[in-house]
Amino acid sequence: MQDHGGNLDVALARFGGRFEDWIDLSTGINRRPYPVGELPPHRLSALPSRSDLTSLHDAARQAYGTTAPALAVAGAQAAIQLLPRLADPARARVLAPTYSEYLPTLKAAGWQADEVSDLDALAGSDLAVVVNPNNPDGRRHEPARLLALLPRVGRLVVDESFVDAVPGRSLAAAAGRPGLLILRSFGKFYGLAGLRLGFVLGCERDVAAFAALAGPWPVSGVAIEIGRRALCDCDWAAETTARLAYDSLRLDDLACDAGWTLVGGTPLFRLYETGDAHSAQERLARAHIWSRIFRDAPGWLRLGLPGDETEWARLAAALAS
Amino acid sequence: MQDHGGNLDVALARFGGRFEDWIDLSTGINRRPYPVGELPPHRLSALPSRSDLTSLHDAARQAYGTTAPALAVAGAQAAIQLLPRLADPARARVLAPTYSEYLPTLKAAGWQADEVSDLDALAGSDLAVVVNPNNPDGRRHEPARLLALLPRVGRLVVDESFVDAVPGRSLAAAAGRPGLLILRSFGKFYGLAGLRLGFVLGCERDVAAFAALAGPWPVSGVAIEIGRRALCDCDWAAETTARLAYDSLRLDDLACDAGWTLVGGTPLFRLYETGDAHSAQERLARAHIWSRIFRDAPGWLRLGLPGDETEWARLAAALAS
Repeated sequence: MQDHGGNLDVALARFGGRFEDWIDLSTGINRRPYPVGELPPHRLSALPSRSDLTSLHDAARQAYGTTAPALAVAGAQAAIQLLPRLADPARARVLAPTYSEYLPTLKAAGWQADEVSDLDALAGSDLAVVVNPNNPDGRRHEPARLLALLPRVGRLVVDESFVDAVPGRSLAAAAGRPGLLILRSFGKFYGLAGLRLGFVLGCERDVAAFAALAGPWPVSGVAIEIGRRALCDCDWAAETTARLAYDSLRLDDLACDAGWTLVGGTPLFRLYETGDAHSAQERLARAHIWSRIFRDAPGWLRLGLPGDETEWARLAAALAS
Repeated sequence: MQDHGGNLDVALARFGGRFEDWIDLSTGINRRPYPVGELPPHRLSALPSRSDLTSLHDAARQAYGTTAPALAVAGAQAAIQLLPRLADPARARVLAPTYSEYLPTLKAAGWQADEVSDLDALAGSDLAVVVNPNNPDGRRHEPARLLALLPRVGRLVVDESFVDAVPGRSLAAAAGRPGLLILRSFGKFYGLAGLRLGFVLGCERDVAAFAALAGPWPVSGVAIEIGRRALCDCDWAAETTARLAYDSLRLDDLACDAGWTLVGGTPLFRLYETGDAHSAQERLARAHIWSRIFRDAPGWLRLGLPGDETEWARLAAALAS
């Protein structure tokens, strides 16, 4: 299994404390989640119906600004698990460094999968993967440049897990073109990663293939209910986009005061060059704040954004200590 | 997509009414669900950790009476979706008639999959599937007979989705033997099908293969929280087992008065020979009670058990009308 943020087990084992003592900034999950409200009991008890799924898909298309076919899946990760089965194994290229699941998942399914460091180097592959904006460094690609790449690859997967807070970067409006697959995460921007909800946007044929692979009940009734409510709430999305933008600059200020340099990021996480990420992580962890570091980049530390003022104060104190 | 119970869309479209007007007896889902109680907000917001999953697996092993490796999946259906990928496509046989998803899912993945009507006819296949007790006819197989089949097939999948209410039929205690895979559904007995939770029990190698195919967050935080609570509640399970047994006989009495004959069943559903299932379904549907009928058996009607006394009274009135 790959290493991921959000696994507090490691933090608790190394630095003690109880789960609830920790501020988990090791992910890019919004710590001020969508207010879910009451849950009708039948969402837990009954099997989701096809019309339930249809209305969730409608809400997603509305929120993402597309008329293309959509399929709800149990998180963007669930789509990644199915991705290698859309076609017979061939040659895949992944724009790296990026989210760690693509390469091993493709390889395990028999694909010849390689990492490349340049967008143009994806050309000629049967399956090309770009995370936009990228995790962990926030690298962005112009929608027009990505669309120009489309005819030069078999399939282009654009993972937009972190695009909600920079919606102008999304290719969702172009979804439906043959060969273009867009993966969306619900849990990160809406702060509800435990729900396991995401979407695939694509042409009819590809979305139907995903639906067949995912099976008849791809997401829970809870995910359908809360997902639909949240995706229809444009006011909350607009306020959250503004707040995340403001807070990401606030985090950069704190990091700057600590002597760190911004490498990149999105409004959901920031990547800093700290000089020595191990000791930076330890300093935060002694204050029970968890962060993400990277094996191949010994100076890099990634931080999600604190939620309420108590969390900001604890982070500021830890960075100043 | 296969036809399934639990899809009230069809009933509403044909017979009117609102969702909440209907009593859905078209499934084998317990209509008196486990009382879920409060849900800690972090179950929605945070990514499930590995220790969360581990404790859910421990609860499942305890409840099912096994020490074998277990993996939580998003319903028994999620395990069926992954099943064809455990090995290269070869020859599969499914003991039929049974749950409609096995055959097309295996075929779609390139398996040569056939239905057989006799347990012994499974011998010689690379993958053999038995649903025990069976859906929709309740057919049961002695654990000893199934274990005797094990060395005669490549892999034996025993789908125990409906075994919770007849726990003496379970092979869970034998899980871990090479070649034996047991699928468990959580949502049916606990009345929480919308949660999407089930388990695979098997030998270390097979369970690890399922885990790799399912990916890092196979079930939601809500499923982990509620699943663990429910699986640890032996008193509720014992009371529910007793109540379902009593109620299934109560349902048989009503059906007998209506002139129907019991074909078979489990304490979660009953299958009746009605002579004319279409008109029997319509009679119930006019009272907004939904049932399951079968294309290949024009007299068969399957009914789940009503929940509270109001539902029993409505069913009795509809059958007497």
